[in-house]
Amino acid sequence: MRRWNGWGDESTSMNLGEGARAMLAQRLGPGQPGQDAKREDLLPRIPASRLLEHPLIQHDASSRLAVGLGESYADWIRKRFGQLPPVPDGVAFPESGEQVRTLLDLAHSQRWIVIPFAGGTSVSGHLDCPLSERPILSVNLTRMNRLLHLDKTSLLATFGAGTPGQQVEAQLRAQGYTLGHFPQSFEYSTVGGWVVTRSSGQQSLRYGRIEQLFAGGRMETPVGPLVLPTLPAASAGPDLREIVLGSEGRFGILTEVTVRISPLPEHESFHALFLPDWDSAEAAVRALAQRRLPLSMLRLSNRIETETNLTLAGHERLIGLLQRYLAWRGCGANKCLLMLGVTADSATARHALGEARRELRRHGAVYIGPAMGSKWAVNRFKGPYLRNTLWDQGYSVDTIETAVDWPQVKSLMHAMEQAGREAFARFGTPVHAFTHLSHVYPQGSSIYSQYVWPTAPGGFAPNFERWQTLKRAVAEQIAAHGGTVSHQHGVGRDHATHLVDEKGPLGMATLAGLCRHFDPHGIMNPGKLLQDGGPWAD
Amino acid sequence: MRRWNGWGDESTSMNLGEGARAMLAQRLGPGQPGQDAKREDLLPRIPASRLLEHPLIQHDASSRLAVGLGESYADWIRKRFGQLPPVPDGVAFPESGEQVRTLLDLAHSQRWIVIPFAGGTSVSGHLDCPLSERPILSVNLTRMNRLLHLDKTSLLATFGAGTPGQQVEAQLRAQGYTLGHFPQSFEYSTVGGWVVTRSSGQQSLRYGRIEQLFAGGRMETPVGPLVLPTLPAASAGPDLREIVLGSEGRFGILTEVTVRISPLPEHESFHALFLPDWDSAEAAVRALAQRRLPLSMLRLSNRIETETNLTLAGHERLIGLLQRYLAWRGCGANKCLLMLGVTADSATARHALGEARRELRRHGAVYIGPAMGSKWAVNRFKGPYLRNTLWDQGYSVDTIETAVDWPQVKSLMHAMEQAGREAFARFGTPVHAFTHLSHVYPQGSSIYSQYVWPTAPGGFAPNFERWQTLKRAVAEQIAAHGGTVSHQHGVGRDHATHLVDEKGPLGMATLAGLCRHFDPHGIMNPGKLLQDGGPWAD
Repeated sequence: MRRWNGWGDESTSMNLGEGARAMLAQRLGPGQPGQDAKREDLLPRIPASRLLEHPLIQHDASSRLAVGLGESYADWIRKRFGQLPPVPDGVAFPESGEQVRTLLDLAHSQRWIVIPFAGGTSVSGHLDCPLSERPILSVNLTRMNRLLHLDKTSLLATFGAGTPGQQVEAQLRAQGYTLGHFPQSFEYSTVGGWVVTRSSGQQSLRYGRIEQLFAGGRMETPVGPLVLPTLPAASAGPDLREIVLGSEGRFGILTEVTVRISPLPEHESFHALFLPDWDSAEAAVRALAQRRLPLSMLRLSNRIETETNLTLAGHERLIGLLQRYLAWRGCGANKCLLMLGVTADSATARHALGEARRELRRHGAVYIGPAMGSKWAVNRFKGPYLRNTLWDQGYSVDTIETAVDWPQVKSLMHAMEQAGREAFARFGTPVHAFTHLSHVYPQGSSIYSQYVWPTAPGGFAPNFERWQTLKRAVAEQIAAHGGTVSHQHGVGRDHATHLVDEKGPLGMATLAGLCRHFDPHGIMNPGKLLQDGGPWAD
Repeated sequence: MRRWNGWGDESTSMNLGEGARAMLAQRLGPGQPGQDAKREDLLPRIPASRLLEHPLIQHDASSRLAVGLGESYADWIRKRFGQLPPVPDGVAFPESGEQVRTLLDLAHSQRWIVIPFAGGTSVSGHLDCPLSERPILSVNLTRMNRLLHLDKTSLLATFGAGTPGQQVEAQLRAQGYTLGHFPQSFEYSTVGGWVVTRSSGQQSLRYGRIEQLFAGGRMETPVGPLVLPTLPAASAGPDLREIVLGSEGRFGILTEVTVRISPLPEHESFHALFLPDWDSAEAAVRALAQRRLPLSMLRLSNRIETETNLTLAGHERLIGLLQRYLAWRGCGANKCLLMLGVTADSATARHALGEARRELRRHGAVYIGPAMGSKWAVNRFKGPYLRNTLWDQGYSVDTIETAVDWPQVKSLMHAMEQAGREAFARFGTPVHAFTHLSHVYPQGSSIYSQYVWPTAPGGFAPNFERWQTLKRAVAEQIAAHGGTVSHQHGVGRDHATHLVDEKGPLGMATLAGLCRHFDPHGIMNPGKLLQDGGPWAD
């Protein structure tokens, strides 16, 4: 059973070892766990539905609460502290594109607000409901979760837009194929959600981002269907796929998604290496990316994250031995951990790994073999479960990510961590901030910073204020360094303020014009991408 | 000096050997060369300019004629037969983005029609002028041809949008870099033109299409500037770059283009192989593309093109020996020529070529070494010069291209050739039609068909009619097979009729909406992409 107020399935927990607890206590002071609100207490507080009875729409409080919040820190503390925001008035569970069409026609004619839902994993406020006079309908796509067509010659697979990652892969694997799109939210996030938020998976170095994987499909918009045919490439004017990608439910609801798949690889392995310090490590991954070696993953932790990961790993004695060995090989206190993935036919994998190790040696890397890499692969989707564990110990976690060209990577990484520390310093609260680069490109890199801090006493308000202060401070640094509002989590409501820094005023007007074009009554997911549709509860 | 009514520089000619002449005579009958119109006769027929005097605008007939026509077959016969269409009333030669801004503001306020010009190599009618009451201003960007900024860390280079391919490469090579974008029009076509028509280069397998190379830039639109920042990747809403790509002058004028460059490769070589027949050849290139071997080019000629190329090569005795050797190795009358390019560091090149040859052997390929490949590389931009030579011998040439998913490739290729044959049969005219795949993708391939036929006596009208019949017949086959309106030549006016088959009615309305958004007075390049802005001279 999926947790209603935390990440993932109730049967799965991640434990914190002694060393990790000690590190947290030392850096952040002892955590003070609070009392969580109960789902049963929230449900009766959900107001009566303002939606008409309709055979496709359910009005029960339980369904409505389940689609009303996502996985952002704000959503998390709303649930944990029982700070109930507006939730949809009803939830539809369409099973076909035709039913989505019916629902949209109804909503369009009645001026209902429509908020699409699928995996519910947004960390950017994509599910926020405005304080509106108009009824709000959630369209929950989770029943549209099947492989509809497989073309083995062109390597194309068509899925219902609500198919979650696990089911995408299970249905493809049964036939010998993979999509290869593995965001950390993979267990729950869906192929349609990936497209409309421009998601990126852990092995994007091989498979590409969802932009490269999305071959076509169908979007129902308030003014009619937009059908995107599959083509290997075209010079036939602006690419309408690229308008659907990142549309975040503003233009319509994606119902079918055709993706570019691959035969299951002959070989896949993950390897750990250490580099002596940040400068050599950054130069090394940049060189690998710019040489375009056929690797599938490069994930570089900075010094603090490296230390944190080694502490989290447990096995104190073994890790101690490793640290001494690494120090002897030149990777001491400033060392940085690089996880490298190779996914290819056997001959290409051998070539790529050999060339990568040669290149990395030139930058002082020490290779410690595949064991740590294999362990990473086993736990690759478990990271978010730690958030549950930390909360129970009295600590909060959030992540902020961006991407920027190489000359700004190091300074922006430092600025993001430092802005976080200064933000919490205003509240006299310590924070543990650390960073990795998980998607490297010839041109630059993503930057993914994580922040852990002691949850404040006093419930929702003080914790929400701390989080807003953090987000604002880090976003300002990102904008000042020319980074994107988001590399992989989308804009939602949480980043909409800053989008103008990236798109410019004419760019923002263009997006607003597209909203009016597809959605003349302004019913689709207001407040996401653009700052419209309010007021809001907070 | 560039030819005014043919391809390329006057100092360069391609000769046809005896064998090629014989083949043409045998297949098409003897060509009957006609008398070309003279530039001096056309110039006095250009009407007086309707544009105001302005320091940035020139009104002389010579400048106006030079920007009034492109390189489509229709443009070609207009020039050759002296069928003068409307040409712009004046030509501006801006040297900066500010001057482009000034010109657009002026045109916007005066409701002048604006047609951007740079390389003048369009083969899709991008330069056509409507029969309009409104004055027409050509904005010629050829003076904006410099490398403006080079970022060696992020491998980004910013050029004036009017920089032609040769100057892009020359300026990069001087610093040890390459863009790697080599369309056949490379000598004249420009980086800005590539972006707004979604161009593809011969080595797109390594470097990507211009979509992948275009990192950002600046477009001046009638309602203000659209600035596209460079970012390695982003999930921040719809990608506005993808609206500029393929915009064909409808939304504004691109002034600066930042592209993703590469260090000059350690190794580059081209290799010729033969496969026994089409089915084995298609399966082979599909396997190579789907294995994602790091090759830089795969160019597969069908049986008729293979035969034609071998005849065009001259060296009858040598080719005869080669044919006998190939037949002995299993590549007889149905053989297909594959040109394969490898561009990489030496180790990767060795790996890729080795693996590719192994894969190709499994499909019955015979490798004949790099000599023919090197010869191809030397002449890689000379193909269009043959058009001059053929014209002088009394023959016309045109090319039609598309891309489609793999299951349709073979049948569409046959249908394109057959539709051409049937189109000319209506006029009792023979045609020599042959095809290659020049851009292969895991999902499908481009298809590039060439047609050679005897130029009809009687001047412009009968030849224009034949050409229109050909284009229409082939376009219908492309649409019926689900192919794109164009893989690499853009839409222009020539393919605008068929764009709705690909974009659908809501897609077309979206493009029209974007036109109105950026260009509320409808001054920008009318009739291109969308069928508006007429009437037209033909």
